[in-house]
Amino acid sequence: MNESHMAREIAEIPAVAGRFLAESGPALSEIGRAFRARRIDLVVTLARGSSDHAATFLKYAIEINAGLPVASIGPSVSSIYRRLLRLDGAACIGISQSGRSPDIVEAMVGARAGGAETVAITNFEDSPMAQAAAHRLPLGAGEEKSVAATKTFLTSALAGLAMLAEWQEDQALRNALAAMPDALSIALEQDWEPLMARLARANSVFVLGRGPALAMANEAALKLKETSGLHAESYSAAEVLHGPAAIVQAHFPVLALGVEDAALPQLSATAERLAAQGADVFVTGADVAGAVRLSSAPALHPLVDPLLIIASFYHCIEALARRRGFDPDTPPHLRKVTETV
Amino acid sequence: MNESHMAREIAEIPAVAGRFLAESGPALSEIGRAFRARRIDLVVTLARGSSDHAATFLKYAIEINAGLPVASIGPSVSSIYRRLLRLDGAACIGISQSGRSPDIVEAMVGARAGGAETVAITNFEDSPMAQAAAHRLPLGAGEEKSVAATKTFLTSALAGLAMLAEWQEDQALRNALAAMPDALSIALEQDWEPLMARLARANSVFVLGRGPALAMANEAALKLKETSGLHAESYSAAEVLHGPAAIVQAHFPVLALGVEDAALPQLSATAERLAAQGADVFVTGADVAGAVRLSSAPALHPLVDPLLIIASFYHCIEALARRRGFDPDTPPHLRKVTETV
Repeated sequence: MNESHMAREIAEIPAVAGRFLAESGPALSEIGRAFRARRIDLVVTLARGSSDHAATFLKYAIEINAGLPVASIGPSVSSIYRRLLRLDGAACIGISQSGRSPDIVEAMVGARAGGAETVAITNFEDSPMAQAAAHRLPLGAGEEKSVAATKTFLTSALAGLAMLAEWQEDQALRNALAAMPDALSIALEQDWEPLMARLARANSVFVLGRGPALAMANEAALKLKETSGLHAESYSAAEVLHGPAAIVQAHFPVLALGVEDAALPQLSATAERLAAQGADVFVTGADVAGAVRLSSAPALHPLVDPLLIIASFYHCIEALARRRGFDPDTPPHLRKVTETV
Repeated sequence: MNESHMAREIAEIPAVAGRFLAESGPALSEIGRAFRARRIDLVVTLARGSSDHAATFLKYAIEINAGLPVASIGPSVSSIYRRLLRLDGAACIGISQSGRSPDIVEAMVGARAGGAETVAITNFEDSPMAQAAAHRLPLGAGEEKSVAATKTFLTSALAGLAMLAEWQEDQALRNALAAMPDALSIALEQDWEPLMARLARANSVFVLGRGPALAMANEAALKLKETSGLHAESYSAAEVLHGPAAIVQAHFPVLALGVEDAALPQLSATAERLAAQGADVFVTGADVAGAVRLSSAPALHPLVDPLLIIASFYHCIEALARRRGFDPDTPPHLRKVTETV
């Protein structure tokens, strides 16, 4: 079998990340200066699909690192309900691989009209979303042929984090980002065979995270749907106990994405509880009674490590898709650019 | 078989809603005055489980009606990552039936310390969350014995809407709320047998909404998990096309919760597309080619109608749980009060 586009694009991730970091210095400095030059009380994000998982990641990173609330704006508020939000104290970050979905473009126009400092993170710097924003942060990830985004998701999240590091002038985060390309290469060498063997014969699976890693759980669940026909759903390791755990019966598969941060004890406790309930639990970042531990790259920084985990997951999911009989490049019923109103 | 607690509590909904409206005037006026007396640039919400669906509902209602952005704050930011958000231009609305989950209580304390105008919507006005807030909006829903919340969810959403109507002095919304108890009685008389017959033999189902009705899709999906062992997942009718539609194969069940508002054409288009893809689609609010239409109570107001739809759904789900062999009052692995950190 020929190598899939998805496999090639996943393998490009360390190089694409390195190129983004090498080439984005001027754009990142410009945005950092613009953000520090005005009072920002709130950040809003605009995104859909995988890009919305990058936005969720950025929400946690900004709330934890900068101490400002972050709101995900439903694009329908502007595109359908025609309501202009008052955003004069806000920064607005739009994330879209194509920069073309009409609802996202319209929401970006609305956010700028509402007074927000606007930034577009996109692989197409001439796209309508990029043109609607005051600042552009192009991913430079090259063409992505696989419908399921991998290198553009990871670079979008990295771009948001790099923007945060410049805005907050956070040297520890800058250093961790500089070390990321090498760490991503190690992440892509991890072997998650125990998880693959279990998911090869599954119908449903829960993917758990907490804090910034919750965004990676969201992304992993979407990829499991898109490429492998699995009904995968993501939850916070706390939220899952407020109801959804009801369907976790014997041998229900659960993937808990843990990183070395303050949330790890709570995530581990949830993983242990679901294992005791009979679930087949797989976990990264911690040894948990009753669960299978999956390997991960050495920890770099609590905000960077979730991106290393998703890289390891991508490496696993491409092979899982083929094992389940799917072509990872062409999910059923989907196209690369989804345009919704 | 004896009537379940859940059936009794669903039947109480019109009376509980009527009592809330009759008794909450002074508290609502106080909050409305406090909100109008200061500049509010942002609303943040704190909630988990069903209550978080009421918060999502309120997010759309406030963004559309008041034109202010609404952020759902991850409780982990304060309880685990120990970050105090800067919220001096914000109102904070906490929603919790018990008012006791430690992460929510801690986040409420943090929001008030961060400068927010705080409101607690809870069934226990002496609970820690209520005591941590500047304003209290007690549901007065009486004891809820069923683990799966129904009357308290609906009253929480109604309370948030009533608060919004007072804050914005919106007479059309006030009038619609006053008519709600009677409309809820009609909503509880709807018969969704075609949906029940299909879900009686399902494993997975997607529940779709758009705008304020998306929150009802979230709530319906959680109830399907809690009471009927179904892997139900909710999506915006736009978001589902950005990836998740990949697992919608022939006869995959889809419930699309439509109401007469600006989003109905887009929701209908998604329902039609999924039906053409082979899904078994059920829809409220519109006639859609290839889909089965479910009945609903007559429309009152675009922000009130989603609550009528969820009441009709509750009536259906209690019977579905029994048909699938579950005790609706005692979901596996859950307790009434979930305490997470």
